[in-house]
Order: sequence, then C-alpha cells, then structure tokens
Amino acid sequence: MDRRTPANSNPRIGVFGATGLVGRELLSILIERSVEADTIRAFASERSAGTSVAAGGAHWPVERFVASEADSIDLAFLATGSELSLELAPCLLAAGATVIDCSSAFRGDPEVPLVIPEINGHLLASDPAPRLVASPNCSTTIALMAVEPIRRAAGIRRMTVCTYQAVSGAGAAALEGLDRELRDHADGELPKPAHFSSPCLFNVFSHESAVDERGENQEELKIRAESRRIWNDADVAIAATCVRVPTRRAHAEAINLTLERPLSAAEAREILASVDGLVLFDREPGTRAPEPRDAEGRDEVLVGRVRADCSQPEGLGLWLFAVGDQLRKGAALNAIQIAERCLESIPLLSVESARDRVHR
Amino acid sequence: MDRRTPANSNPRIGVFGATGLVGRELLSILIERSVEADTIRAFASERSAGTSVAAGGAHWPVERFVASEADSIDLAFLATGSELSLELAPCLLAAGATVIDCSSAFRGDPEVPLVIPEINGHLLASDPAPRLVASPNCSTTIALMAVEPIRRAAGIRRMTVCTYQAVSGAGAAALEGLDRELRDHADGELPKPAHFSSPCLFNVFSHESAVDERGENQEELKIRAESRRIWNDADVAIAATCVRVPTRRAHAEAINLTLERPLSAAEAREILASVDGLVLFDREPGTRAPEPRDAEGRDEVLVGRVRADCSQPEGLGLWLFAVGDQLRKGAALNAIQIAERCLESIPLLSVESARDRVHR
Repeated sequence: MDRRTPANSNPRIGVFGATGLVGRELLSILIERSVEADTIRAFASERSAGTSVAAGGAHWPVERFVASEADSIDLAFLATGSELSLELAPCLLAAGATVIDCSSAFRGDPEVPLVIPEINGHLLASDPAPRLVASPNCSTTIALMAVEPIRRAAGIRRMTVCTYQAVSGAGAAALEGLDRELRDHADGELPKPAHFSSPCLFNVFSHESAVDERGENQEELKIRAESRRIWNDADVAIAATCVRVPTRRAHAEAINLTLERPLSAAEAREILASVDGLVLFDREPGTRAPEPRDAEGRDEVLVGRVRADCSQPEGLGLWLFAVGDQLRKGAALNAIQIAERCLESIPLLSVESARDRVHR
Repeated sequence: MDRRTPANSNPRIGVFGATGLVGRELLSILIERSVEADTIRAFASERSAGTSVAAGGAHWPVERFVASEADSIDLAFLATGSELSLELAPCLLAAGATVIDCSSAFRGDPEVPLVIPEINGHLLASDPAPRLVASPNCSTTIALMAVEPIRRAAGIRRMTVCTYQAVSGAGAAALEGLDRELRDHADGELPKPAHFSSPCLFNVFSHESAVDERGENQEELKIRAESRRIWNDADVAIAATCVRVPTRRAHAEAINLTLERPLSAAEAREILASVDGLVLFDREPGTRAPEPRDAEGRDEVLVGRVRADCSQPEGLGLWLFAVGDQLRKGAALNAIQIAERCLESIPLLSVESARDRVHR
C-alpha cells in the first residue's frame, strides 16, 4: 500500500515546531514560494496548542500533533529539537509521510541523506526517492554554498572557518534575551546574561554548544562532519572556531581555503559571480564587503572579500567572507528546497503515478 | 650636549593626543603605575587647548604644543594620528626627548624599533638606547602576546588570524556613534551608520581601513608586516581577516597556527599558563573561554580555547583565542612599558649618569 500523495493531488504539509523561529520561517516561505499544498498545518507543543502563530501574512492555528493522525500528513518539516525529531520522524515515516528534518538528529546517519540541493541534490533523485532527509547546520550550509563553486573548480584540500554567528541561531528566547539586555542597558545597568551564560550585548563569546574533551564545541564538529558528508569526502581537512556575536540575524563566516589546484582570486570571483543561490557582493573593486544586515531576509548567500591568501603558495590559498540568513538558507529555505526536489521526484516512483500525471 | 634627563631626576613627560581614548588611557596608566615624573603634561589640538581632560582620577589641563618649547619634554608619548606623529617626532627628538609613538607612522621604518617589551624588549637595551620607538598595532600586539610563548617552544610556520575588533579601536567618535545608534534603536529606528560607513549595532563589518588592490585591508597588512618585524622573521607566513564587531572595548582574535615542531595542546596550555602579561583563562576543563568583557580594563592578554587543529598533521596545528584590551596592552600600556624600559636604560648611556645614580 502506497500512502504517499499521488502525483495528481497536492501534499498535506505539516510544519512541526511551528512557533519557533525556523518554524515560522518555514510557514512564511511556503507561502512566499506558493508551494502547492492541499493543507498546511502548524504543530507545536501542548503549551502552544490552541494559540496561533503569525507567519507569511497569515495567522496559523497551532495544533498539538496526535500520532494516530500521522497519516493525515504527506510532507513533514521538523523544526524541532533533535530529541523530538527522533520521536516524530519514525512515526511520520511509518504513516507514509516524507520527512525533512532541520535538527541534527539524523545528520550523521549514513542511511539519511544530508542535503544542500545546490551541492548534492542528486541524492534526492534516487529511486526510490528518500523519505527522510536531513538539512544541515546553518553554519555548514552558509560556508558550503560559498565554497562549493571553488571546490568544483579547484578542489579543497583544507578549509578553516571562523564564524560570527547571530543570536537568533539559538532561537526566539535568545533574541528576547538580547532585547532584555538592551533594556537593562538603557536603564543604565551593565548587560547581564539574559539567555546564554554570557551577555550578548557588547560582547562576543565562544559558541554555547558543549565542548568535547579535545576542546572543540559541537558547532565546530558539525561543520567538519557535515561538510565531509555533503562533499562525500571523508578526508578533507576542516576545522572551525565558532563564535556568537551580537547580531540579530544572519551569520558571517571568514573562510580560509587551501586548494588542490591553483586558482587566482580573479578566477574565483568570476566563478562565484555566476552561481544560483549565491551573490558575489563586492564584485566591483572598492565596493564594500557583505554584512549580516545585507543578508537578513534574503534567500541567497552573499560572498565577498575574495582574495588570495598570500600565506600559502601562489594560487593555492584563498580567503572568502560569506554571509547568509541562517533562518532561511541556513535552515527553513534549504528544507523547503529539499522538499521541492522530493515532490518533483515522487511521480517517478511508480508507473501509475507517472501515468496519472501524463493524463491530467 | 646631552639634553636627556639625567638619571637622578625624573623625566618631564608629555602626552600628545591626550583627549583621545589612547591619550586618556596613557594618563591613567601613568598614574596607576606611579611612573616617576617631574611633570606630566597633556597636549592636544588647538580645538581642545584650554579645556581639561579627566583621566586617572585627575583633571588635566590641555595645552597646545608649541614647537619652540620642545626642550621642556624629556619623554613624549604620541597618541596622535600618523600624520601628526610624523611632524611631532622629529621636533621632539631634535630637542632631546625620547619619543614613544603609538601610530603607524614609524612601524615600518627599519631605523625605528617596533617593540612589544615581552617579546623583543632587548631592542630597548641597545647602546645608545633608542630615542624613537614605535608601539605596534593593537591587533598585532594582542595576537603576538598569545602566540609568542608557542613560537619560542615550537616555532611558527604559518599564522592566520580572524579578528573580532571593538568599536573603540576606531576612537572616541566611533564609540559615540555606537551610542547614537543605540538611541536610534530605542526610538524604534533601524540602526543607521553613525560613525563608520556601516552601522555597528547588530552588525559586523570588514575593518574600515583602506583595501589594497589585492583585496587586503590595512589592518590585515599591519598584522603581517608588524609581526614579521617583531619576530625578526621576514618569511613567516601570516594572513588575517579583520572584522569589526559591536563590542565597546577589547579585541578578540581567533588564531590558527602551523608549528615548526610538534607541540600538544596540553603542552601549549602548560607553557601559556606561566607567562608574564598573559592569562590562560580557561585552564580548567569545562570552564568558559575568554570574552571581551573579561579583558576590559585589564593589563593582561587573556588566552583560551587552546586546542589541537585536527585539520593539520598531528601536533603541528593549534588554535588559540586571544582577548585583550586594545586601549591598554594594545596601545597605551605597551607604550608605557616601552618607556619604562627606556628610562631604565638611560643611566647606562654615560658613566657620569650611572655614577649619579649610585651616589644618590
């Protein structure tokens, strides 16, 4: 029994964790991109059920998900924490849904494709199409969007990344904490930590994720592990330093590359200027580099400061500075792009549904 | 004719650019450290002359410097812009003063030592003692304070630095601009650029210094050129990405090292824990990394996140995260430490003054 949506009807979509920053962004982008859906439902915890969430110009009633109704969902976006994703995904899959997970729950699972459609979207065209797909960590996606065209042209031997990560990457409560710190400051008080263990306002601090015994935090580990999976290159040398800065939205990343084959900065700029989903921001000499404020609310990753790294052999070292909205391409948009590709490939699954489409 | 202060009297000190952030810090630190002086005078532009500047718990009358009175100064601290330093230094030197310049005017001059006393303070003990000494750029000093002990133990083949630089590094007007942006925000307006060409509040941007034809800004060039001079190593590979972040004071820097000889992270921590002027901040496992707020007003550079960089061959890659008050060790304190060493060495210049000191 194939319970998936036949090709001649539109999917019934569920957004889980709909009241969070990524959940709301998912709802907004579904509307913006006019994703064809039979229904779009917003699910969140019992606490929020019965309220509504404003997104994409509409107010969405928030429902509590009941596992016995899982077969009423054809396409699920999980903007939930890892633990909840680990619970929800099997239940939804068993009921026939396609599941796109934005958490880290399945990113290391070799059975689950980890996808940035512009980079390894071919994984979504497999037959049968994957029913569970993981969307990468925001910092990984933003870095790889900028680096991928260079990798295709010249290969990557080593990549180091230093991040300048926005507060909203830690969720709505973190943003509210920043606002609270601002009010304290206006009242003449020193910024006190309001959400993280360190203050955000007028401070920067090492990413709040747990630090392992070697001294790396989880965000740094994710950048390495996820990049290697997405590039299907277990050996590429990758290391990062991940830092939160007092920006509200959009991460910035200083990226240093060691290339396999020589590529000049001019050639790199030429390549980066003509890639879908990417904007070479400071293409003209003397124009300014991209900044978080430029990327807020934008779909594209902005790349700039493309220059030779003269601390490496001629042509083999390159610096980039990438900025991207971590709620959009860094999370919700990437998940929806994954879904769009999955929906495209669903009719290919069976001769029947392909015929259905032809006969419409 | 030796017009320098004899060893048995205290120098007449002049602080130039006294109304600026570094100038005020110089006055404060002179008081804090009880630097013995016959007089300490505060000089600034004609605009400020006749006013007073508050620093170190005192109000200093601000004078306009008259070149014909240059011989009333034995020790001059120049916290002036490069152009003014280029004018003032020859005049003061000709009148017999020892000059410590905080600007970039003389940092590339092979005749002028560029000194971080903890690293190459031996240059100040030359005979005759140098009469003009340059103090390095703040980002250079903070990075090198953290890296020097590692360099001595294991050699540095390559260093890359990504900075998180405070607004006050660009002077008092920049800080006032940040406050203006805060007020705009409180009034419900979007942060507009108030001092730099980009807004500071909730934004990060590439360092505002001029960008050369290869795409490097002046701050990045300074880190390379000055580090090479201070280390007396014209070949060491160095590259940086310099970024302003909305912190008020104290720069942070993520530093990636390629070592000449293997050194474990544990060995590096051991070494860094026992260096004057440096604090290994997160010595105990699980404690947090240093942040700008920890370094504000402190003399020491704080170093943390010492960990192996696993993107490099075992033992040869190391990450550090350094934070330092760029107005203190990054500028004023370093200049005063230079002067303290110069003052020590003055009696060595002539047998007479050495005898004077012995007979006191």
